[in-house]
Amino acid sequence: MLSTEYIHSVISLKIDELSFNREPAELYEPIKYMMNLGGKRLRPALCLLACDLYGADIAEALNPAIGIEIFHNFTLLHDDIMDQASMRRSKETVHKKWNQNVAILSGDTMMAMAYEYMMKTPEKVQRQVLLAFNQTAIEVCEGQQYDMNFETQWNVSIEDYIRMIRLKTAVLIAGSLKIGALIGEAPREESEKLYKFGENIGIAFQLQDDLLDIFSDEIKFGKKNGGDIITNKKTFLYLKAFELADRKKQDELIHFFSPDFTNIDEKVNGVKQIYQQLDLKNITATEIKRFHQAAMVYLDDLNVAGTSKSELRKVADNLMNRKY
Amino acid sequence: MLSTEYIHSVISLKIDELSFNREPAELYEPIKYMMNLGGKRLRPALCLLACDLYGADIAEALNPAIGIEIFHNFTLLHDDIMDQASMRRSKETVHKKWNQNVAILSGDTMMAMAYEYMMKTPEKVQRQVLLAFNQTAIEVCEGQQYDMNFETQWNVSIEDYIRMIRLKTAVLIAGSLKIGALIGEAPREESEKLYKFGENIGIAFQLQDDLLDIFSDEIKFGKKNGGDIITNKKTFLYLKAFELADRKKQDELIHFFSPDFTNIDEKVNGVKQIYQQLDLKNITATEIKRFHQAAMVYLDDLNVAGTSKSELRKVADNLMNRKY
Repeated sequence: MLSTEYIHSVISLKIDELSFNREPAELYEPIKYMMNLGGKRLRPALCLLACDLYGADIAEALNPAIGIEIFHNFTLLHDDIMDQASMRRSKETVHKKWNQNVAILSGDTMMAMAYEYMMKTPEKVQRQVLLAFNQTAIEVCEGQQYDMNFETQWNVSIEDYIRMIRLKTAVLIAGSLKIGALIGEAPREESEKLYKFGENIGIAFQLQDDLLDIFSDEIKFGKKNGGDIITNKKTFLYLKAFELADRKKQDELIHFFSPDFTNIDEKVNGVKQIYQQLDLKNITATEIKRFHQAAMVYLDDLNVAGTSKSELRKVADNLMNRKY
Repeated sequence: MLSTEYIHSVISLKIDELSFNREPAELYEPIKYMMNLGGKRLRPALCLLACDLYGADIAEALNPAIGIEIFHNFTLLHDDIMDQASMRRSKETVHKKWNQNVAILSGDTMMAMAYEYMMKTPEKVQRQVLLAFNQTAIEVCEGQQYDMNFETQWNVSIEDYIRMIRLKTAVLIAGSLKIGALIGEAPREESEKLYKFGENIGIAFQLQDDLLDIFSDEIKFGKKNGGDIITNKKTFLYLKAFELADRKKQDELIHFFSPDFTNIDEKVNGVKQIYQQLDLKNITATEIKRFHQAAMVYLDDLNVAGTSKSELRKVADNLMNRKY
């Protein structure tokens, strides 16, 4: 079993090597910029780890793993336009640094490049890999649409929310693992178990994000708490709070989230206080644990030596235990 | 050899049958709307005609042909955002009818759907078909970027312009033919000749568009002449006029195209007069003929019975002879 550290170094080397020096420069410069912003590179790492689990050469999965990372960055690029976000990983977003048209078109090109790299698989698994990737790509778009719908939709249930984050976040993590397993020529049931493992980890990961937005170490997290509150995002904490709140607290939440409420500090503190009163830190942590444990059942159930699962377990644990 | 009319009816039926009734509706409604705006459906028709040329069953090429049409409509959708166009085929554009975020995301989804349909090819040609499609997709994005660059670039040569329209318009027409030939299991040289045929037809087609924008029957064309002049587009006519003009006429052109010049009628009439004085109608027609003839050489050179080429010749002739 290769270590996660080694796998990350392979991915970094490959991304550094990528030639974005094609013409026209106006199109490829923002792509290079986006790919070099860094990030956890979680998805390609999971893809390679899954491939390695079945004793295959990770070199065979490296191009598709990069394709997944390009696709992930494409979604961030277009999401930043849609969210009108000005910063990404402490740097200016592409549509701010250049302009919106450049951001749309560079994103489109990244999507085509993602497929270009995804095609560079051993021919015998290519069809399955592409089908898995393509379904994932469509589902991620669907998830983003649900997320946008929720901005103006009042009756969002926790179930709706979990479905949305499953599509927007979890399926790409799940798909990365499945694609790695397919390239490793794992049996079908194995690749499906890895998919389910990834799906549950992905949901737990997003819930953790929701939690950290409110209850994290601001210095280590690198940004102030409450970003989701300020932008009126209907996160798990918000939806659960609304579900648990009595009439009086519900009115307070509605009041804080109304467009007329412009005092940001008062808003963040007020909402945070309600979350604390309703014990949402623990409730959310319990929910995260639930999805994490569900993931572990799928991991335990894999038909490979116990020791070789340890790296995947470590990645999952790190994602759950991160404090920022 | 199947007739173009028959092929068009097959394509229309298939597009009508497509189920865009997936969820979330907010994502798929605009896609359905876009696909049902009509249009010439030239690219899927060329794909099927090329497949038929080699005696293959066009049913095998139908899904990829639809994938090409979905991709083409995706490019129109995103181009309309970038051009801030409010009308497309006499109807509101998606970003006007819904909003910009919906247009970005529906477009992204259409691109993934295009690949979904493109994958539905006989397995033995899938790799080649996908490679051809993917290269085309990236080139179309590059072409759009060059087109955007030209808006603010003063020293655009005719050669630059031909390269831009080759990428933005011609390669998708060429790629459609090539993909049809690949599915028809044509020999490699044959699919390359069809590609070159399409490339030349595509360039001629765009030059014809440039010409019709200025010198067409306004009633039949369905819009007033001079749209490209009003939006300061650097078309073949503009670039050639600038090349042929003496210093005085160049100054006049610069004057008409300056942002201070706000009298639209005077601008269109003034520029049109210069074009007429410089005989640009004939010069452009000659250029169109040149690319059309180059295309015909590739068509003549195909190693199939002369009669079976007649439908492709007819399509090419119709494109060249259209008056609107």
